[in-house]
Amino acid sequence: MKALVYRGPGFKALEERPKPALQAAGDAIVKITKTTICGTDLHILKGDVPTCTPGRILGHEGVGIVDSVGPGCTSFKPGDHVLISCISSCGKCDYCRRGMYSHCRSGGWILGHTIDGTQAEYVRIPHADTSLYPVPAGADEEALAMLSDILPTGFECGVLNGKVTPGATVAIVGAGPIGLATLLTAQFYSPSRIIMIDLDDGRLEVARRFGATDTIHSGKEDAAAKVMALTGIGVDTAVEAVGIPATFELCQSLIAPGGTIANVGVHGQKADLHLERLWSHNITITTRLVDTVSTPTLLKAVMSKKVDAGSLITHRFTLDRILDAYETFGRAAETHALKVIISP
Amino acid sequence: MKALVYRGPGFKALEERPKPALQAAGDAIVKITKTTICGTDLHILKGDVPTCTPGRILGHEGVGIVDSVGPGCTSFKPGDHVLISCISSCGKCDYCRRGMYSHCRSGGWILGHTIDGTQAEYVRIPHADTSLYPVPAGADEEALAMLSDILPTGFECGVLNGKVTPGATVAIVGAGPIGLATLLTAQFYSPSRIIMIDLDDGRLEVARRFGATDTIHSGKEDAAAKVMALTGIGVDTAVEAVGIPATFELCQSLIAPGGTIANVGVHGQKADLHLERLWSHNITITTRLVDTVSTPTLLKAVMSKKVDAGSLITHRFTLDRILDAYETFGRAAETHALKVIISP
Amino acid sequence: MKALVYRGPGFKALEERPKPALQAAGDAIVKITKTTICGTDLHILKGDVPTCTPGRILGHEGVGIVDSVGPGCTSFKPGDHVLISCISSCGKCDYCRRGMYSHCRSGGWILGHTIDGTQAEYVRIPHADTSLYPVPAGADEEALAMLSDILPTGFECGVLNGKVTPGATVAIVGAGPIGLATLLTAQFYSPSRIIMIDLDDGRLEVARRFGATDTIHSGKEDAAAKVMALTGIGVDTAVEAVGIPATFELCQSLIAPGGTIANVGVHGQKADLHLERLWSHNITITTRLVDTVSTPTLLKAVMSKKVDAGSLITHRFTLDRILDAYETFGRAAETHALKVIISP
Amino acid sequence: MKALVYRGPGFKALEERPKPALQAAGDAIVKITKTTICGTDLHILKGDVPTCTPGRILGHEGVGIVDSVGPGCTSFKPGDHVLISCISSCGKCDYCRRGMYSHCRSGGWILGHTIDGTQAEYVRIPHADTSLYPVPAGADEEALAMLSDILPTGFECGVLNGKVTPGATVAIVGAGPIGLATLLTAQFYSPSRIIMIDLDDGRLEVARRFGATDTIHSGKEDAAAKVMALTGIGVDTAVEAVGIPATFELCQSLIAPGGTIANVGVHGQKADLHLERLWSHNITITTRLVDTVSTPTLLKAVMSKKVDAGSLITHRFTLDRILDAYETFGRAAETHALKVIISP
Repeated sequence: MKALVYRGPGFKALEERPKPALQAAGDAIVKITKTTICGTDLHILKGDVPTCTPGRILGHEGVGIVDSVGPGCTSFKPGDHVLISCISSCGKCDYCRRGMYSHCRSGGWILGHTIDGTQAEYVRIPHADTSLYPVPAGADEEALAMLSDILPTGFECGVLNGKVTPGATVAIVGAGPIGLATLLTAQFYSPSRIIMIDLDDGRLEVARRFGATDTIHSGKEDAAAKVMALTGIGVDTAVEAVGIPATFELCQSLIAPGGTIANVGVHGQKADLHLERLWSHNITITTRLVDTVSTPTLLKAVMSKKVDAGSLITHRFTLDRILDAYETFGRAAETHALKVIISP
Repeated sequence: MKALVYRGPGFKALEERPKPALQAAGDAIVKITKTTICGTDLHILKGDVPTCTPGRILGHEGVGIVDSVGPGCTSFKPGDHVLISCISSCGKCDYCRRGMYSHCRSGGWILGHTIDGTQAEYVRIPHADTSLYPVPAGADEEALAMLSDILPTGFECGVLNGKVTPGATVAIVGAGPIGLATLLTAQFYSPSRIIMIDLDDGRLEVARRFGATDTIHSGKEDAAAKVMALTGIGVDTAVEAVGIPATFELCQSLIAPGGTIANVGVHGQKADLHLERLWSHNITITTRLVDTVSTPTLLKAVMSKKVDAGSLITHRFTLDRILDAYETFGRAAETHALKVIISP
Repeated sequence: MKALVYRGPGFKALEERPKPALQAAGDAIVKITKTTICGTDLHILKGDVPTCTPGRILGHEGVGIVDSVGPGCTSFKPGDHVLISCISSCGKCDYCRRGMYSHCRSGGWILGHTIDGTQAEYVRIPHADTSLYPVPAGADEEALAMLSDILPTGFECGVLNGKVTPGATVAIVGAGPIGLATLLTAQFYSPSRIIMIDLDDGRLEVARRFGATDTIHSGKEDAAAKVMALTGIGVDTAVEAVGIPATFELCQSLIAPGGTIANVGVHGQKADLHLERLWSHNITITTRLVDTVSTPTLLKAVMSKKVDAGSLITHRFTLDRILDAYETFGRAAETHALKVIISP
Repeated sequence: MKALVYRGPGFKALEERPKPALQAAGDAIVKITKTTICGTDLHILKGDVPTCTPGRILGHEGVGIVDSVGPGCTSFKPGDHVLISCISSCGKCDYCRRGMYSHCRSGGWILGHTIDGTQAEYVRIPHADTSLYPVPAGADEEALAMLSDILPTGFECGVLNGKVTPGATVAIVGAGPIGLATLLTAQFYSPSRIIMIDLDDGRLEVARRFGATDTIHSGKEDAAAKVMALTGIGVDTAVEAVGIPATFELCQSLIAPGGTIANVGVHGQKADLHLERLWSHNITITTRLVDTVSTPTLLKAVMSKKVDAGSLITHRFTLDRILDAYETFGRAAETHALKVIISP
């Protein structure tokens, strides 16, 4: 089969690889019908994720059709249309039992990382019963690919951890795909104001179309000052959706007393925490690797049209043109790519 | 009347001052029967709290007897025995209505800070109806002085923010009075393990007597390594009760995935936050200035003997010897002072 | 001044009464600009509320302009436009401190009940600082009259108590004004399905316009069976918004395991609770007299257009025609009245 | 093997039965080392549980040693000492994923009910990975048999659902084994007062020994009146641990405004709910079949000596004398039996 393979920092190739085989009783083999590329894939390609070794098929998102299942997989059968979670969850360990699937003792984020992933014709899914979800009748499967990672990440790490509530004020720092996913799902809770902050006018324009009440170009304006002007005391929830010290510090500048800073970004270095000011401000800071525990909720939200998951999709490619898809996704500033869909 | 007055960095004096008078309709004048000294008073004396200006009567803790009340004070009358909260709360503003009395628009921590405090024969209490609590019949008033600040601080900022639960593991970094108050009140929730970490063998000995299951002298042992050895994956709750970058970093080293770091310490400088490691650990960090919203709960806990508040008291002085009290409290390493009681 | 006075069961009159005067330090006198009639007023007129005695000016809803304030009222001054809460809250007692304003030791629902109410040219408001809310700049004051009682009742007793969440299923039994207020505010949380159940086709039509995804005429269809057909296992949240045993029993028939029945209706008699079936269904039942603790949230939601409060208003009258207003409101089945606005 | 078999209403027998065999991939066969009798077993014997048919081996509690496992069981191996949960949980279905194991689509309470149970030499456990728990090193296995059902039931249905908090007041109606299990685990949260109500002086005596602060013999005293006298406004939490309408009504008489009635009892008939009084009292009523989701917490609490689970054990028998054990347990009023342990 064809597969996109990581070949070491800076290198990737579309290669011919053997179709994966069942290995454990709980495995399923899934034929991929839609997959996509994540910012994390770009990090791997830069060499930022040493636990991902050369030779690995990338990709941890997608929908597909069950091809075969092991004897321990009782919830799915060949032919079933399924959503693949970016997080593999055994459903048995202490972390899974607490809903922290991201820390599953024999799973977590392994797809396209420590085992082969979804940017291929087929993928092997461990713990299939608790890592796949049935595609609801009538669903737009392409849009559902947004539920593998990006929507649960925005929702769990940003919105739920950020405790967004009706009438509250929210700032989201970073209007890339993950910030926009946070913006889309924050509206489940009817905040009065959602302020998007970014350095790209195009993305801020998208944010306004997606429901942002206010946008700030932080290269042209003093973002913290503008947030204070808009809110008086700062925001109730600040979501960090970039992953660098400067944006995490910005969140500390615009959070109201009693507020929550929810980190979504993937950070490569430490950041300053201004405890000399914040120790007495009754704030909460959260971090989280997505658990995908909200997938059932998001499926219901998508099916009842509370969120238009497909609105994040800007480009479409076939698998044999996946290198073009990477090119388009990688040069997002120029291409205005958000999420790119790859079909067989 | 006699009062302990801040005279600028490094200077304090026991002076004769006029008895305070009612100023606003909601005020009460309280005759102090028991007061005490807080670590924050030492910070003021070092010059660390510029909002406290020379000439200020110090002290924000105590119990006493109502001497007179303004026309707007309807819950108390002269002769009532009262507990004084370190936080003045109007009960009307948006923050008070949310239970964030620490950020009261016309109150918060003002006693012994921006208005004259309790280390005197009398004190004026603004917003008396919502800043004083009736002393329950049969209470040990001296022990109740621990409910002005130290017990609610340990309980709210450490235990409640830290989400201590039955069976959970807790580490408290710092076994000073505030760390010990956290230790005492953490036991309300029956954690399976409470590990106290400090540099003073005497305080660790007290901690064991107060219910710590394990103690670590962080000058003699690698505290993070020992916590990992005791718990396997780190603690569910880490309480920072010192207020310096090193101890806040230690908390980051010993927290389990999914755990909570609750900051109690007063910090004078920023600290490193290791987002490069913690971004994916599903942790929560909280800060809080005590709101004293838990005072009714703590009064019930003390009266039903769920906590021995008086156990924190090590020394007693009369007001005319308050300079000795400061001396004793300031040299705690030698005197083994925890809380010192000052009576008229 | 003119006022609508309860004259004993079955009798009411528009009378000339003296303008109210300040009585306590915390009082305010408010000139009414908009008031409205509540189903509870009809209950009083039927004689169902013996604590309301003849001679009482009715009405517990409205907006107005502060005319005068007592010396203890520090948050408002003459000329301020204010929203009047149906619940008077002292802000000081144990219940108020817990957010249970409905059980305030010296307040609660007293307006138009045990003290004179708002269906008059002026009203005296006790505990004004904590029972009035400033009208935001630019607000539609008529619409804001819906925030005195009906919207917080639907939101607190139905939506918050019912724990409505994104993607969840909700059934509301009763599409009268209070059921519709629940419907409007339930949408703050983006449930996937809101099923309205009533006996009046006109109200079900309104419900569909207000956002119900499904409606059931319980006189023509088996409501429980239809809910099961729509949901498979019953609803996550069932809101009782009628107040009779039959509708409370219906809620028990359509609730899913793990679900919540939130009672909003005012009941005059006991109901059967089918513990022989429900003891093992992990359900929650809640009751509540509105606390109006959510008023600040609702003000933000109205001002940010998350809810169109004015959509509940169907008729308008001047105060001298308030008897016609009662007539219209009382014959809602024919007049299709929801809320009627009365202006001076 | 020997097994206690239900032979239809009123009949049971100790019979010779074949040792159970593995049926599904996830099964384990466990050799029983300790089992016990539950009040539910008596209900079955009376014919109250028609879903339990004659020929069934009874018993849903116990500890034992794994004898063999199916290929899908990956967490246990022969020789492992295990605690058997009374609830079988697949870990995969929607209810299990929400922590509602009691409603597992292919499990729930099935042991000694719809499949053969633990009152035998061996038992087959379906979904073993998620229905067994490893016995911690050094545990008293006899005491651990209290964690199969009675302690999680008291804790989850009574204490957690009842929202017991530090300083709160609690009344437990019924001082049988399950009421006493509630009493023991309520103390994890340090309530200020726990009032036990029963008709048996012996059990009230045990309750005092187990930590009740007050006891009421409801046959000799007016229980509701006495609770009001003790608390002023009623209790914050009332636990129904009997299962008849009268005791459920008693809970309604002694609950404070804002309080929670947590039902633990198994009810055979409906009860009156006094909505005509309670509709405005802001109360919560909960029902629950134990989920055993708290088993990991309870294991930690037992191992750290926060609760003495073994204190519930009053009698011990060998399996060949299990009919005597039933006799002793059935005549608890005379024998003062709480829990009886049966060993091979």
